Amino acid sequence: MKLYNYFRSSAAYRLRIALALKGLSYDYLSVHLAKGEQYLPEFTAISPQSLVPVLEEDSGLRLYQSLAIMEYLDETHPTPPLLPADPAARNRVRSLALIIACEIHPLNNTRVLNYLTGRLGVSEEQKLEWYHHWVKTGFAALEKRLADEPATGRFCHGDAPGFADCVLVPQVANARRFKVDLGAFPTIVRINDTCLELEAFKQAAPERQPDAQ
Amino acid sequence: MKLYNYFRSSAAYRLRIALALKGLSYDYLSVHLAKGEQYLPEFTAISPQSLVPVLEEDSGLRLYQSLAIMEYLDETHPTPPLLPADPAARNRVRSLALIIACEIHPLNNTRVLNYLTGRLGVSEEQKLEWYHHWVKTGFAALEKRLADEPATGRFCHGDAPGFADCVLVPQVANARRFKVDLGAFPTIVRINDTCLELEAFKQAAPERQPDAQ
Repeated sequence: MKLYNYFRSSAAYRLRIALALKGLSYDYLSVHLAKGEQYLPEFTAISPQSLVPVLEEDSGLRLYQSLAIMEYLDETHPTPPLLPADPAARNRVRSLALIIACEIHPLNNTRVLNYLTGRLGVSEEQKLEWYHHWVKTGFAALEKRLADEPATGRFCHGDAPGFADCVLVPQVANARRFKVDLGAFPTIVRINDTCLELEAFKQAAPERQPDAQ
Repeated sequence: MKLYNYFRSSAAYRLRIALALKGLSYDYLSVHLAKGEQYLPEFTAISPQSLVPVLEEDSGLRLYQSLAIMEYLDETHPTPPLLPADPAARNRVRSLALIIACEIHPLNNTRVLNYLTGRLGVSEEQKLEWYHHWVKTGFAALEKRLADEPATGRFCHGDAPGFADCVLVPQVANARRFKVDLGAFPTIVRINDTCLELEAFKQAAPERQPDAQ
């Protein structure tokens, strides 16, 4: 398998964790987003959205969208599972992941921040306020669910790492990079720190990738 | 089942379509977002994110996040299926849905538009430009995939309506409400119009809901 990747992309980071949890190896193909390599014709032919990650099977089959690729990996390489077996539990785990993937991350990625400071002429301070606002709004809801729901264990769901943890850890890393105060989110921080003790999460970390600077 | 709902919420609209395609009936509980009813303690006790939709089973089990609820419905009521059987095809359909759910919709929902015009003091014109920009960026990628990929049929995937169509139609409705020119997206418009001929999509339409004004 080949993974079109960028060390700092948190969507790619999710998938690197999932692949490592599954014990799957891959060729790391860097698409340097900060240099704009995602807009080169060679890459838009592969990814019409100019987004990483893209996972390419040896057959040439291309898979898109981090969460949908994680679902694919769980269906094609079921052990260890990323999602639990019970439909209600699967809804729980997916919905925790989607709080981050739909309510936080899309508002805070580079192209959105660039639109704010570029076209809308928003100041650096206002941009950071925006970033912090959406992390805190989303994390407040996530923290409440993780703290209140008995299905939470050492990890987001029970005592094994899974789908929601793959999404949580990159978002916490991003929040820390932007200096968001995580004091109000002790359960999120506890689960994140538990994850970071595991080899799969260490391997997937941005600073361990070949294109990290 | 009970569906906490709002006629104009496009996340709720997705789920109304999915429920109608499955032939499942439910009690419609309106949470009037424009009146702020999502922030009332009665509702935050049900939905910590103050978001609709929430689906509640007769057992009291609560299900969150429209895409995760659609997955749950497909697992618990498999006929007719929303997702195809093959893992690569499932990735395709989910990834089409996520283009909308992660790259367009989160940027254009009411609370984000309110932040732009409120805290950032953006003009109405700039707000509309923002709205159009993200719809067009996401739709351009979606159109390219739908037009190029042979798996596209009368609907987003083959000749039966499914998961991606449930997400597409509410986004097209929203785009039209905000007067986005859809001329560059003929495949999206064709699939949308095909969907709207079906009874399930008609029933789910915002203007047919009890709280529509």
